[in-house]
Formats: sequence, C-alpha cells, structure tokens
Amino acid sequence: MHILITGGAGFLGQRLAKHLLQDPNLKRLTLADIVLPPNPTDDTRVQSHQTDLTNAAATNALVSSDITAIFHLAAVVSGQAEANFDLGMAVNCDGTRHLIEAVRHQAPGAKFVFASSLAVYGGELPAVITSETVLRPQSSYGTQKAISELWVNDYTRKGFIDGRVLRLPTVCVRPGKPNAAASSFASSIIREPLQGQPAICPVDLNLALWLSSPTSVVTNLAHSLSVPAEKFSDTRSLNLPGITITVQSMIAALSEVAGPDITSHITYERDDAISKIVASWPSQFEVNQATALGFVGDRNFQDIVRAFITEQNLNRA
Amino acid sequence: MHILITGGAGFLGQRLAKHLLQDPNLKRLTLADIVLPPNPTDDTRVQSHQTDLTNAAATNALVSSDITAIFHLAAVVSGQAEANFDLGMAVNCDGTRHLIEAVRHQAPGAKFVFASSLAVYGGELPAVITSETVLRPQSSYGTQKAISELWVNDYTRKGFIDGRVLRLPTVCVRPGKPNAAASSFASSIIREPLQGQPAICPVDLNLALWLSSPTSVVTNLAHSLSVPAEKFSDTRSLNLPGITITVQSMIAALSEVAGPDITSHITYERDDAISKIVASWPSQFEVNQATALGFVGDRNFQDIVRAFITEQNLNRA
Repeated sequence: MHILITGGAGFLGQRLAKHLLQDPNLKRLTLADIVLPPNPTDDTRVQSHQTDLTNAAATNALVSSDITAIFHLAAVVSGQAEANFDLGMAVNCDGTRHLIEAVRHQAPGAKFVFASSLAVYGGELPAVITSETVLRPQSSYGTQKAISELWVNDYTRKGFIDGRVLRLPTVCVRPGKPNAAASSFASSIIREPLQGQPAICPVDLNLALWLSSPTSVVTNLAHSLSVPAEKFSDTRSLNLPGITITVQSMIAALSEVAGPDITSHITYERDDAISKIVASWPSQFEVNQATALGFVGDRNFQDIVRAFITEQNLNRA
Repeated sequence: MHILITGGAGFLGQRLAKHLLQDPNLKRLTLADIVLPPNPTDDTRVQSHQTDLTNAAATNALVSSDITAIFHLAAVVSGQAEANFDLGMAVNCDGTRHLIEAVRHQAPGAKFVFASSLAVYGGELPAVITSETVLRPQSSYGTQKAISELWVNDYTRKGFIDGRVLRLPTVCVRPGKPNAAASSFASSIIREPLQGQPAICPVDLNLALWLSSPTSVVTNLAHSLSVPAEKFSDTRSLNLPGITITVQSMIAALSEVAGPDITSHITYERDDAISKIVASWPSQFEVNQATALGFVGDRNFQDIVRAFITEQNLNRA
C-alpha cells in the first residue's frame, strides 16, 4: 500500500500522515506540497517532495504506478483564491486536473480522495442543505472546488480513478498561525485567547458556522478509503458531518471551558470581504448519507475546545 | 456593435448569424469554427475565421477589443465527447476557458452567451426539473458543460464578463446530416422520412424528450442579449422553454402531418450506448424563470414538423 498526500506540509496533511502511518500495512507514504513537507514521525516509510501541481510534468513525476490511494488536500484557500483569481484557477483547477490525469495514466483505478468544501454552496439556500441541494458557489474557491468535484466524478464514471469527494465543514480549531482562508478567524478566536494572544472577530456574532474538529476530519478522510465503490450511487460527492454553531456560542463555549476572562482577548472589527464570503456558506446540513457510510461527527464545541487544549498542552481547564 | 459566434459554421451558428444580420445596428459579425464558416447571406459585415479554440493564442486573436457580445456555441457533441474523452475535455473545457480568458482581457465586460445543455442533469432526478435541481451529469459532455457554466458564472461575478447561460433543450428538427450527438436520432427520425430516406430509431418508443425548434432556440439566443444583468440573481444559468414529448408521439405527429405511410421509413434498432446517455437526460422542466425573462417556447410538435417542411421546401402536407 502506497499512499500520496498533496498538501502534505499542511496541518491536515501532517495529521492525516500521522494517522495513516499507524497502519503497519502502509508500505510507503509520499507527501507532496509547494514547500517540502516534514516527516511527521521520522518514519522511514515517508518520502517528501516539493512539487508545484500547476506544473504537469512535476505532478506526473509524483504519481508512481504502485500508488493505491491519493488524498488531494492541496489548494489555494478561499480568501487567497478570491484575491488572486489566476492563482486559484491554476492551483485549484489546473492542479487538480494534472493530478487526476497523472493518476488516470500512471495509477489507473487508484482511490482518489478529494477534499472539497461547503463553499460549493451559495446564493439563496434552503434552511438545511441536503445531497439534493443545487451548487451555486459565490466565491472563486467554491467554484473551483465544484469544478474539481465534477472532474473527479466523471473520471470515476469513466473508470479512470475511484473517486471519493468529501465536502469538509470549516475545520476548527486549527493550531498554528492564521491563514488566508476566509474562515481563518473561526480558529483564531479560540486558539489565540487560549495562548494569551489577541484575536479579531471579523463577522457578526449571530453568524452560524458548520464546523468539524481536526480529529473528525482526519478520521473521515482515512475512513473514505474503506467505503466500497458500490455504496455510492449517482455521485461520489458527500457532505461530511459537522456541528452548527453561532460565533457567539463558540465564544460562550470557550468561556465555559477556559473561564470568562478569556474573552477579553477578543476584539470585534467587522471585515466586509470576509463576512460576505463566510455568510454565503450554509451552516445546517442533513448528512444521513455520510453517517450511513460510517463517517463521524463531533459531539459539541466544548469537547472540541477541550481536545485542542489537551493536544496543545495548554494546561487549561 | 460587433458580435462573435463560435461554432459559426454549424447549423445553429449559421441560423443565428442570419437572424442577427437582420439588425442594421450590427456593424460586424465574426464567425469562427474549426472549419471556415460560410457567409450565410453574403453580407459584407461578416468575417469568417477557421480557429481551433483549444489553441489559446488563436482564440486570443479572435477576440478584438470592439466585440460587445459573444455567442459560444462551439462544442464537441455528446456522443463524441463520450467516445473521445480527451477531445471533449480539450474543446469543451479548455476551449471555453481560452475564450472567456480572451474576453476577460481583450473585451472585458462583454456579453457572453453560453449554450449549455440539459445534459448537465442526470442520475436520480425529480419528476420535474427546476432551477433548484442539483447538477449530477452522467456523461462527459454534461460534465464539461456544467464546468463551463461554473466558469461563466464566476467570471461574471468577478465582473470579467457579462454571462448568460442558456440550457438548450434537444434541438429538433435539425436539417442536414446526422451528427455524433447522442440525440441526433431525434432529428433523423423526422428529417429522413420526410426526404424519403431510411432512419433508425435507437431508443425505446416511450422515451420522453425535451425539445425545442431551431427557430425558438435562435430567437432565445438572440433575446438573451436584451435581458438586463440585474434581472439575474445568484446565477446566470437558465433552463430554456421546450416541449415534453415521447418518441412515439413524435412519430405520431410526423404521421399526422405527412401521412401514415411516412413511418415505413423508420426501423427500430436499439443502441445501448445512445439509449443510456439520452435516458439519463430529463424531459420535464418548470421554466417560469426563463418565461418571466421573455424567453419563448414552441406550441406543439406538429407545428415544428410543419415549419421544417416549409423551411426545407419539402412540398409535403
């Protein structure tokens, strides 16, 4: 078993790598990213490559014939794809196409797990998103994810790859630094206060989000490999489980877990660009299809905050 | 006013050209296609170009800065896109992208009318398609049209172009020869008998189709230029009006118009590949949005057959 992870230097890529390396049947794990991915556990099975997916030849070189599964996590994030349209098109459309073409020709039929996003939805939406809800993305990031989904589905239908498309909720709490994702604040307003740092909340407090912990997302990404192809019907695209919560309730949960003083680190400065993108995303989903296939969700946001504190050794609560 | 039509050598492109040339305000009409488009009325305002849209430089050269509107009709048709996957991707995805990029940079903000298709729908469908129905194409052609729609919508949202996406019903009756579209038979079973030629019906008689006459489609394409941008909301994609009819009823209408003997020209040989593609397309639509914007439909199939006979001077009925 040889697995390739793109976006392997990223937070999710590194966590997924650690998770997959626990399996003794994994013979080789290739991590690729625009920067050279670290070996997360100094495991001899790991090989790292600095690869730009917008370069078709470099992407081809990445996909050896013994690869049995690919996790395509690499992407230009939402805020950046909106600010730099051409970069988003190059990485999120062309990069995905180069990769599925390489798999089609060099590792045909391999499992291809694509990390999509709730940003494929937008515009006037029903109260609850289901598998029947039309995709009307209102951001370039969401558009590029929706396009990649269509390719993964058609390449799968043609038998070129064995695709699985997981639409990830906003992942929270991410460790590390803020990034250019429009949803970056969702982690910042929890992570920074817990480390005694200031955080800015750029959206209305009553804005509702659809969230998943990193642990649930990594578990679900890995789980997707074990879902038999015949369990899917007309589409390989699935909405993953998550929890619906307002920004206000997130802050209340933080306060409940870490004490009321902690909220003094948060200031409120509305950012129209961020608000517009994030408010176009849905926050309530019916995910019966995903749960029937064994995908998991989180219990509540307090548990997510507690898990983050434990993982980061923050000595809180 | 300078208009560009891609697919300008095709049947719809030529008819649209004739229609647009009736307007004295049209100063210039550029027709482009993979073969050199004829000048349909020997009009001095027409310029023809033999252009391969998969060539970005050639496509760029086509889009002069004075162009105010583009009709993008060029495409690899459904049956061919299914048989030659790479050609479909090159023309239907890359060709569209080259063209919208050229418009973005050389004629920014120009009206961009994209001919999409009911093939963007597929899989398990509701009895009646609405603007809220999810796109789950089950063919490479449908996938490529859905992808192009997403680009046209996002380029429009960004202000690069002023897009209008019309999902055309199956156009019937097309004059001329059969083509590689999976729906080609729908015209053949009417056109060939009326000319005393044999025709093969490759699908079940109870298969229902969603049809539009060439006249309605051309009228609707031209009309789309006059719809103000602010009349659209979250999407520029529209399902055009059509009529729902079974193959059996089409043949009955032919018989009604041209006499019962005419059906002796039709033989029945089921083709699984064609049946599978065509049966994945929906046949009933709610098109309130399009009719509210002034798009038109046909009255019944008998009228469509009669119009074809008149246009082609077939001296029938």
